[in-house]
Amino acid sequence: MSQARLMDGTALARRIVEDTAKRATALTERTGTAPCLATVLVGEDPASVTYVRMKQNRCRKAGITSRHVALPAATTTEELVGTLRALSADPEVHGILLQHPVGEHIDERAAFEAIAPEKDVDGVTFASFATMSFGLPGFVSCTPGGIMRLLDAYDVDPAGKRAVVVGRSAILGKPVGMLLLARDATVTYCHSRTRDLSSAVREADIVVAAVGRPRLIRGQDIKPGAVVIDAGYNAGNIGDVDFDSAVEQAALITPVPGGVGPMTIATLLEQTVHAAERQLGVA
Amino acid sequence: MSQARLMDGTALARRIVEDTAKRATALTERTGTAPCLATVLVGEDPASVTYVRMKQNRCRKAGITSRHVALPAATTTEELVGTLRALSADPEVHGILLQHPVGEHIDERAAFEAIAPEKDVDGVTFASFATMSFGLPGFVSCTPGGIMRLLDAYDVDPAGKRAVVVGRSAILGKPVGMLLLARDATVTYCHSRTRDLSSAVREADIVVAAVGRPRLIRGQDIKPGAVVIDAGYNAGNIGDVDFDSAVEQAALITPVPGGVGPMTIATLLEQTVHAAERQLGVA
Repeated sequence: MSQARLMDGTALARRIVEDTAKRATALTERTGTAPCLATVLVGEDPASVTYVRMKQNRCRKAGITSRHVALPAATTTEELVGTLRALSADPEVHGILLQHPVGEHIDERAAFEAIAPEKDVDGVTFASFATMSFGLPGFVSCTPGGIMRLLDAYDVDPAGKRAVVVGRSAILGKPVGMLLLARDATVTYCHSRTRDLSSAVREADIVVAAVGRPRLIRGQDIKPGAVVIDAGYNAGNIGDVDFDSAVEQAALITPVPGGVGPMTIATLLEQTVHAAERQLGVA
Repeated sequence: MSQARLMDGTALARRIVEDTAKRATALTERTGTAPCLATVLVGEDPASVTYVRMKQNRCRKAGITSRHVALPAATTTEELVGTLRALSADPEVHGILLQHPVGEHIDERAAFEAIAPEKDVDGVTFASFATMSFGLPGFVSCTPGGIMRLLDAYDVDPAGKRAVVVGRSAILGKPVGMLLLARDATVTYCHSRTRDLSSAVREADIVVAAVGRPRLIRGQDIKPGAVVIDAGYNAGNIGDVDFDSAVEQAALITPVPGGVGPMTIATLLEQTVHAAERQLGVA
């Protein structure tokens, strides 16, 4: 059996970021204002600090200003909501990213809902979830949005295909299923309570693994010729798909790393510039 | 083969409305204020007029005041949004129902979003869709909510079961799938672009037909012993399920009429009283 073709998220993300940087430059030249992403971090969790720093660096390289708001770990829900509302009202800020998860003492949903939908470039608000679900204009959650771009780049049309999403988180599994449904796939959501996961996954023309369990999906679960998107992140750069066996069954497959991962931040940057274009009256 | 047991929505809805009426009376006695549902109708479409009148009558019998706002057919989106915002801000109104579909010249989504989520007893806002999808507290769309109550009343636990939803509308198919997913079903969405609908439906332990095509689902599409919920409405009181053949395959089935239909308005009334209880500080 021939091996699957790799879906190169690194190369695609690079092209998207290059285009985004050109748009950011054009916008800055035309309006005198650079796109600005506000990043909000509560506490000093080392992984979160690293993620935010990486996003700021990527913004800078793409011609996007970032404004960082660092809040102490003891910040209350009310204080965080106040900060996010102020950023939502600030005309110099075009996009807002709340690094999450936030501490357990904070009502994360209340915080997300304090982000104005027109600045929700990370796609975390109720409004963004609903517009994704109903196929309406709006910002998408970044990883689901990146997955759809990958499918498009490899000419995978979801219409009429069976798509199986393994995982049902609010920012990954649920929205990617809704985006696939909006593109006319027949979508099945599987999760920890699914009986006979293997059989369900074997129905799929498109598999999206988004559950965070290392190598949960194996080659024997994959229908020959399927498209396999591994959106799982597990320690040691291991995906939710057992790549070595899945690559023998699939027609197209995302590697980990270098598949879905780079698409997430590319989508964030692209949506930030789009938000700025709209708020500055250019788009 | 034995015939399916019928799921009697008429009897269940009656019990729910009786309980709701008792709660409405208790609330009125305790606070001096009766629960109030505002009904908003644009234009004079005869079917819409009938629906609204029926809802008002049912409110009255349940001890719920209704305030009717009749707007001319030429009402603009802006005017309708203004009306709905005023009702959202009016402390004497506890729930708001916009009879839809509204005219095509109106941005229905903008109108829905003008309804405050805490008064969205018809479950049409982005916020209600998202809370349904994420398993959070909030109001549900009335027909999906009624379907879940029917399943509970007949001791059908969705957890771990395969549920197939045929249809993907914003107020029926999509939310009922999300409610089933929140209750741990493995959920598949089918629709007009699904290839081999029969095979997909035959996977289901629970079928929800919500597509508006008369007798689309036949007995041969039903796995023996499945639960069949017919939420389809077609001219002549015909459902989306071919009852006569499906009843021979299913274990439980909703008749049309007398299945899902009565549950919708019961859910509306129940949510209106719940909204009033919360706004009057009793719940």
